[in-house]
Amino acid sequence: MNKFPTIGILGGGQLAQMLALSGYPLGFRFIFFDPSADACAGLTGKLIVADYDNEVALDEFAQQCDYITYDFENVPVAAAEFVATRSKVFPHPNVLNIAQDRLKEKLLFSQQLDLPVANFEPVNSFSELMFAARSFDNNGFLKTRTMGYDGKGQYRVTPQADLKELWDKTGGGLFILEQAINFNREVSVILARNIEAEIICYELCENKHKQGILTTTMVPAKPSKHSATAFEYAKKIADKLNYVGVLTIEMFETDDGLLINEMAPRVHNSGHWTIEGAITSQFENHLRAGMGLPLGSHAMSKGYAAMINWIGKIPPVALSNKEQDIYWHIYGKQNRKGRKVGHTTVVADNAQKLHTKVVQLAKLLAAPTN
Amino acid sequence: MNKFPTIGILGGGQLAQMLALSGYPLGFRFIFFDPSADACAGLTGKLIVADYDNEVALDEFAQQCDYITYDFENVPVAAAEFVATRSKVFPHPNVLNIAQDRLKEKLLFSQQLDLPVANFEPVNSFSELMFAARSFDNNGFLKTRTMGYDGKGQYRVTPQADLKELWDKTGGGLFILEQAINFNREVSVILARNIEAEIICYELCENKHKQGILTTTMVPAKPSKHSATAFEYAKKIADKLNYVGVLTIEMFETDDGLLINEMAPRVHNSGHWTIEGAITSQFENHLRAGMGLPLGSHAMSKGYAAMINWIGKIPPVALSNKEQDIYWHIYGKQNRKGRKVGHTTVVADNAQKLHTKVVQLAKLLAAPTN
Repeated sequence: MNKFPTIGILGGGQLAQMLALSGYPLGFRFIFFDPSADACAGLTGKLIVADYDNEVALDEFAQQCDYITYDFENVPVAAAEFVATRSKVFPHPNVLNIAQDRLKEKLLFSQQLDLPVANFEPVNSFSELMFAARSFDNNGFLKTRTMGYDGKGQYRVTPQADLKELWDKTGGGLFILEQAINFNREVSVILARNIEAEIICYELCENKHKQGILTTTMVPAKPSKHSATAFEYAKKIADKLNYVGVLTIEMFETDDGLLINEMAPRVHNSGHWTIEGAITSQFENHLRAGMGLPLGSHAMSKGYAAMINWIGKIPPVALSNKEQDIYWHIYGKQNRKGRKVGHTTVVADNAQKLHTKVVQLAKLLAAPTN
Repeated sequence: MNKFPTIGILGGGQLAQMLALSGYPLGFRFIFFDPSADACAGLTGKLIVADYDNEVALDEFAQQCDYITYDFENVPVAAAEFVATRSKVFPHPNVLNIAQDRLKEKLLFSQQLDLPVANFEPVNSFSELMFAARSFDNNGFLKTRTMGYDGKGQYRVTPQADLKELWDKTGGGLFILEQAINFNREVSVILARNIEAEIICYELCENKHKQGILTTTMVPAKPSKHSATAFEYAKKIADKLNYVGVLTIEMFETDDGLLINEMAPRVHNSGHWTIEGAITSQFENHLRAGMGLPLGSHAMSKGYAAMINWIGKIPPVALSNKEQDIYWHIYGKQNRKGRKVGHTTVVADNAQKLHTKVVQLAKLLAAPTN
């Protein structure tokens, strides 16, 4: 009698969907838990629709799972801890607890691990905001400690900004103010670490954002004197957390070195290129890590890869274009402003070809509906 | 509002499962119809469990589908015709009608298309068997006209065989007797043809069987003077049927040329290597063909590929081996003698490397459970 493990995923977005698509050929089964009946992972497996504080539903979910993981880092820690009393959960809910709070995250990086981050100050009141802003020459970003993603919950502080107006706009709460920095580029390290503490790191990703949302990832990032350090930092964080699964560390590269921005305790948008661009995808390796299996190779399948997000709407060419080395991914979601509805990956065997294809692809994506 | 088409599949085996896995990134939704609640495609989408003559269930199924196709060619034609009154169906149910009957199939090839097949005679009685056997020097294969697959429903006729005993063993019915032939190898052409009559053919597949079940496919087949003819024959059949979808034509190669053996109006086991070994898999191209989309490239992704079936049980190394260029596919089925429970695909950039890897893989597959 073969035993096929059932993997539960808290959150049913496109990351859960791609985890399932990568896990079915391994013989795994999938159940998703999401407050929305529209959760797009539900297309590809069983979906339990309930709020994260519904313990009856969480119990029903967890009873069916051999292993549980997350689709996003803002799953309430209480829900993760609740299901952890009934099933194996990876990464550990403690990691969620840290990743959900920018202050705890920064303290982990800077205090516990002595890794470089941009200067920051906790801000819990208008007077703290004024004080912190002054120490950063009124040049920074006020960010909510919790529930921030895709640029949400961020406010720009400048010498011209009216701090009182800005503070009122936030509605108050717990924040950190980060000093604005001049960086040359944003990079991310995507690594997988399994139960035996084996670690693989994918090639360094170079990311471009627009209004806080990732638009493009190019891999490998152009080599710099800091590349090796990026991997070293990411591994330190993973080891410190005794992390199991795929972990993503976003960093800013400045003239003086790297500054760690944030971590995502999950598969990551800047790793979608791994489906076609790496020997083993981040999705498969996340599952392998959690299941105690040997990790698959992080090596590039063709040498170079790029990923372009579709923000807001599915490009008309997504089904009609079948050019070689261009791969289209539709998540099955309705169009909505600022929403990630799909992505395209391009692979090439040299950097010049990749560049040409990305330019060509950008034109295709911008083409009007016919 | 994005419209995401729902594709229904009659039959819920591993072919339906792999069709769904290839179709989700295209934004398609899937529903499977199968008499067995265990049907493994049900792991990856919605499964309606009912018999093929249950018109209420077929109606419920068809009402939810924009397009319907098949997982296997022995879906009752009546069921396919019934759902065709409610939804688009591809390939046309007429093709099922022919593919389900060896006699009709042979007559299509030999009479209507004037293509070479092994000599054959219809056999509906013991006396017809005796007569036909004599004309073939008592050297042939008695095959049921319907419901034969994976070597089922086949009886070997030899000069030594007791024909009366053999006939009694069959229990009677409608058969054909095929003359035994000396062939050098078995090959298959897998092609996709879309609504606009565009055709792509994958590289010629060379197949090995054991007790009637496919065990290994190597691609491309070693070139021979007959290779070009194989594609020509397959295209003639597809055009004659005004075929839409993936069509597989199995042939025997003899010293004197090719003999067409049979067709499968669907994605085929000898095309599983296309998932990693071709730019666009047979599964995606079957869907693209049926949906009126341009077909994807049939080109080899790395030059060479091989597929080895797991018959009866899942090899213990399926999850632990993560060597580069070796891909494991578990269908999530229980072990059972003679059952296809998964497969492995190997890719390589030259024939020698492929051969080495296949030998190494055969050892891995044969290794005992640890």
